[in-house]
Amino acid sequence: MGRVLDRINCPADLKQLSKKETELLCKEIRQCIINTVKQNGGHMASNLGTVELTIAIHKVFDAPEDKIIFDVGHQCYTHKILTGRKDAFSTLRQKGGISGFPNIFESDYDAFGAGHSSTSISAAVGMARARDLMGQRNSVVAVIGDGALTGGMSYEALNDGADLNSSLIVILNDNEMSISKNVGGMTTYLNEIRSSPRYHRFKKRFKGFLKRIPLIGAPLYRMMDWFKDCIKRIFLKQVFFEEIGYTYIGPVDGHNIEDMTAVLSQAKELNKPVFIHMVTKKGLGYQPAVDDPEKFHGVSPFVVEHNGDGGESCSSIFGRVLTDLTHADDRVVAITAAMPSGTGLNGYRANYPHRFYDVGITEEHAVTMAAGMARCGMRPYFAVYSTFLQRAYDQLLSDVCLQKLPVTICIDRTGIVGEDGETHQGLFDLPMLLPMPGMTVMMPSAPYEMEQMLRLTLTHDGPMAIRYPKGALWNAPVKEDVVCGKSQILLPVEELTVVTAGRMIKEAYEAISTMGGGIGLVNLRFIKPVDEEMIRQLKAKAKTVLVIEEGTTVGGIGDAVASCLMDAREIRVVKMGVEDHFVRHGKTKDVLHDLGLDKAGIANKLHELLEDMK
Amino acid sequence: MGRVLDRINCPADLKQLSKKETELLCKEIRQCIINTVKQNGGHMASNLGTVELTIAIHKVFDAPEDKIIFDVGHQCYTHKILTGRKDAFSTLRQKGGISGFPNIFESDYDAFGAGHSSTSISAAVGMARARDLMGQRNSVVAVIGDGALTGGMSYEALNDGADLNSSLIVILNDNEMSISKNVGGMTTYLNEIRSSPRYHRFKKRFKGFLKRIPLIGAPLYRMMDWFKDCIKRIFLKQVFFEEIGYTYIGPVDGHNIEDMTAVLSQAKELNKPVFIHMVTKKGLGYQPAVDDPEKFHGVSPFVVEHNGDGGESCSSIFGRVLTDLTHADDRVVAITAAMPSGTGLNGYRANYPHRFYDVGITEEHAVTMAAGMARCGMRPYFAVYSTFLQRAYDQLLSDVCLQKLPVTICIDRTGIVGEDGETHQGLFDLPMLLPMPGMTVMMPSAPYEMEQMLRLTLTHDGPMAIRYPKGALWNAPVKEDVVCGKSQILLPVEELTVVTAGRMIKEAYEAISTMGGGIGLVNLRFIKPVDEEMIRQLKAKAKTVLVIEEGTTVGGIGDAVASCLMDAREIRVVKMGVEDHFVRHGKTKDVLHDLGLDKAGIANKLHELLEDMK
Repeated sequence: MGRVLDRINCPADLKQLSKKETELLCKEIRQCIINTVKQNGGHMASNLGTVELTIAIHKVFDAPEDKIIFDVGHQCYTHKILTGRKDAFSTLRQKGGISGFPNIFESDYDAFGAGHSSTSISAAVGMARARDLMGQRNSVVAVIGDGALTGGMSYEALNDGADLNSSLIVILNDNEMSISKNVGGMTTYLNEIRSSPRYHRFKKRFKGFLKRIPLIGAPLYRMMDWFKDCIKRIFLKQVFFEEIGYTYIGPVDGHNIEDMTAVLSQAKELNKPVFIHMVTKKGLGYQPAVDDPEKFHGVSPFVVEHNGDGGESCSSIFGRVLTDLTHADDRVVAITAAMPSGTGLNGYRANYPHRFYDVGITEEHAVTMAAGMARCGMRPYFAVYSTFLQRAYDQLLSDVCLQKLPVTICIDRTGIVGEDGETHQGLFDLPMLLPMPGMTVMMPSAPYEMEQMLRLTLTHDGPMAIRYPKGALWNAPVKEDVVCGKSQILLPVEELTVVTAGRMIKEAYEAISTMGGGIGLVNLRFIKPVDEEMIRQLKAKAKTVLVIEEGTTVGGIGDAVASCLMDAREIRVVKMGVEDHFVRHGKTKDVLHDLGLDKAGIANKLHELLEDMK
Repeated sequence: MGRVLDRINCPADLKQLSKKETELLCKEIRQCIINTVKQNGGHMASNLGTVELTIAIHKVFDAPEDKIIFDVGHQCYTHKILTGRKDAFSTLRQKGGISGFPNIFESDYDAFGAGHSSTSISAAVGMARARDLMGQRNSVVAVIGDGALTGGMSYEALNDGADLNSSLIVILNDNEMSISKNVGGMTTYLNEIRSSPRYHRFKKRFKGFLKRIPLIGAPLYRMMDWFKDCIKRIFLKQVFFEEIGYTYIGPVDGHNIEDMTAVLSQAKELNKPVFIHMVTKKGLGYQPAVDDPEKFHGVSPFVVEHNGDGGESCSSIFGRVLTDLTHADDRVVAITAAMPSGTGLNGYRANYPHRFYDVGITEEHAVTMAAGMARCGMRPYFAVYSTFLQRAYDQLLSDVCLQKLPVTICIDRTGIVGEDGETHQGLFDLPMLLPMPGMTVMMPSAPYEMEQMLRLTLTHDGPMAIRYPKGALWNAPVKEDVVCGKSQILLPVEELTVVTAGRMIKEAYEAISTMGGGIGLVNLRFIKPVDEEMIRQLKAKAKTVLVIEEGTTVGGIGDAVASCLMDAREIRVVKMGVEDHFVRHGKTKDVLHDLGLDKAGIANKLHELLEDMK
């Protein structure tokens, strides 16, 4: 007998399965996820926790007519397996293979793309409104974790969605942690709801108690008429979600498919917003992931990919140096938005629990909170992935830069990040930061530079950003101390000179080496402000300047350098980087190669330019 | 006898005042606000509504040691008058005068700058944490309106602040409307809390009822022991803010200074987060503002400043044309984030209430909600001020552009906005939009162009943005139909050619006219993509290209045009615009003049360039 999974080609096939077959299917899907994630990397714990939930949803609803939206999207593997992508599943996160996140261009079953937190309810409210305007009858279902619920946008959407007079189903996938331990008041609140059987028992006992009173029963009952309304209101009202306009159902066991299908079928019939609270267990079916779900949140393939020369990762340098700085200076504090481990702050947290703030998945709040601390004399360091910093654009500009506050943004995962793909690449933070008045932007190309830059931030009285990639930087052959605002002339300026920064320094250096020299190389170090002395040197000697960047060429390093050279008509500036498009997933090395952003690609470009200059 | 106000030079002076004097002071302050706002423009209703509240706060707390943070900041006039700026108050919003918003560079009493919504609690949490780390004892008070509470960031901060084990005071200034009518579930919820005396009465009656039962009293009381806990928990828990970890006090009459000082004094002593619910009335003391607070939210000075030639304002054109489009096409819907009036959508709302969505002060949600609608076949138009769009940077990039969805962002208040100053200038949206792959960005220079561009959006299958200033555009002397992706050669390309867009077209055209011609003028119309045919013309004939923009020159039009001309070494590109700094308040005309962005400034620059070219 073959696998149950072999018979599932679309969600409709689920409806025929017996209870036993469904159980078998769950096991098969778990095995499929474990095998693929072990091989390709990916999100282990969150996907193992939502196998039953996803099956229950697809049993009750009819996708793609019914719209199922996964928040963040790192729990969509079962959904992908059930919606025609089981054979392609082994290509997960591989170049040319399927994405690790929902993607509307990959399948019609992916109702809305995701990658960043807390967008699902907004998209669902939009889809419900579109449905109502078009006179259609489909369901719209948002599946959101308790972590994503700390993001303010979820709350904006919940609030607005309460105004709908039609069907909207929000499923809270409550696994009692998001990526890291959840934080804040809402967590406490959800914990209390989890214990709500107490209230149900109370209601029952109260009713029995009334009946058993002999004499006083009747007047008490009259009193109760008025009283009941209050009690009812109070009991209904105890749950916040109900109070702001949702029918609340829960908590439901998120691993019991029968319970879930019953509840979902009921919700499907209601012509109003419904909030369903499901409780799941992250990593279910794979003990190591149950025991340490944070570690297994995002898993790298078991063959580790080396970046640079395999030295200490930038995240690790950051955590280590910030711990040093905190030891020496009482003003230093560290802030993360639910990424203590990814940003290298786990060790810091252990050493300085009282100066470490994990504020939840709330980049907006994190930045303004940091501004508040800086305004009162502290030196806050906010460690964040490039792509997630996009959430705090306005706060960085209006609360930090406008007020000239000494907040340092430590931007991890800049440039190409690899298998997480389009929504996670760090391609846009530079054009975001460069127009902000008063912002200083640094990029280390080597570990020693990163250390020195971090130490430098403490001596600077204003906003700073330091950008670094996932993994390690190279061990630079020439070491020169970092000086504020100064670039490093790594190879003397020539008629053809390369200007770049960060991880591209190594590639450019090696490309030039293979060509036998005669080409200049500037390690910018500071992208803003651009070093004017270095610009003078370029003006004096260069004829062609090749600016290389691991990010979009629109508004990035190339434009910044070109802007400084605008009045030097005799210099040609050539930009190399990511040209105005999003970049899909694949191994970082492969992706960089395809973009021409490696030794080989740069050497080709340099040959071409030398040819032009003849 | 002089005014009470004459004796108030700092908040400490308030503490000596009798009840009667305090009442007089309120009247005097109201008069002062009415007089100044009538003269200078500004926020009338919100400031009139918070006179007593601000006095009560300054009576109880000791600023600037105690930190008082006003959310949005458009209710800070009384605070400014009480904190040493009563004499300067007549210069409110005038060039060189005091700002209409809190500004840390203006006074130490302004604990944190504001202008955009929903940041106060985040800043307060940061300040409370800084205080705790430094072992200080001051209070931190955030004053936030019910409108700002719809912004998700407030919720992120409330949630995180619940983790504080120390003092934090959040005052909800509940005036039952923000700028426009409030929307969504939280409003309903607050309305229910407002009626909570019912619960207090219930509690009282219940207690009395128990005592009056003869026989059953004792066993009932025992039952009550267990029962009481539940009841207590329920009653305490009825209020959401209490549930997530705040001591809730309220509702309090926000015009009764004695009640408020009592409550605030109590809150000051509590060593934990407190949430105080004050109810105020917008516009109190000025009947026209009470009757129509939306109209009086932001008041222009009574002498109207004409923009362009005083024709129909851009906001009005937008509302009118979108109404037309909606009439003709069932897919069109309009979205605003609490700005129906400011963005010109009041008429639209009246005509198409079911296709109009005011989602509250939630730009993040608004954009993703629009993406959800577009994904289901609708054509959403999100009307938003340039500066507030900054809140939705990530949503625009990740949810709209990455998914290539036909959402149109109608960006009002681009460029210089005048008296609202630094936090409201529309200087940054272009560098924000240009790096987004697949985004089309348009700028009309004249009303007919704006109409045609709006109609064009319906024929384009992807994200679009259309940017226009506050006020009216000029009546162009030459009218040519808008063609997608094409610029307009207003004056033939010459060796010296000006390239610009939007409101600057008029200024450039008039500057060139005064100079007797011989200078080219390109009306870009499309900032992205840049018209390649026009670039070819520049390459063929121009020697110097002056790019003028009403926004930051970092990553704006100048860089976009220069990037297209990079391989044309013989062309010199000169940028003119706002150079990497924030721009303070003042009349739009004066501010533009000071920046050199008017006929005179442009003529000067052209003379200079002609001189260089000789």
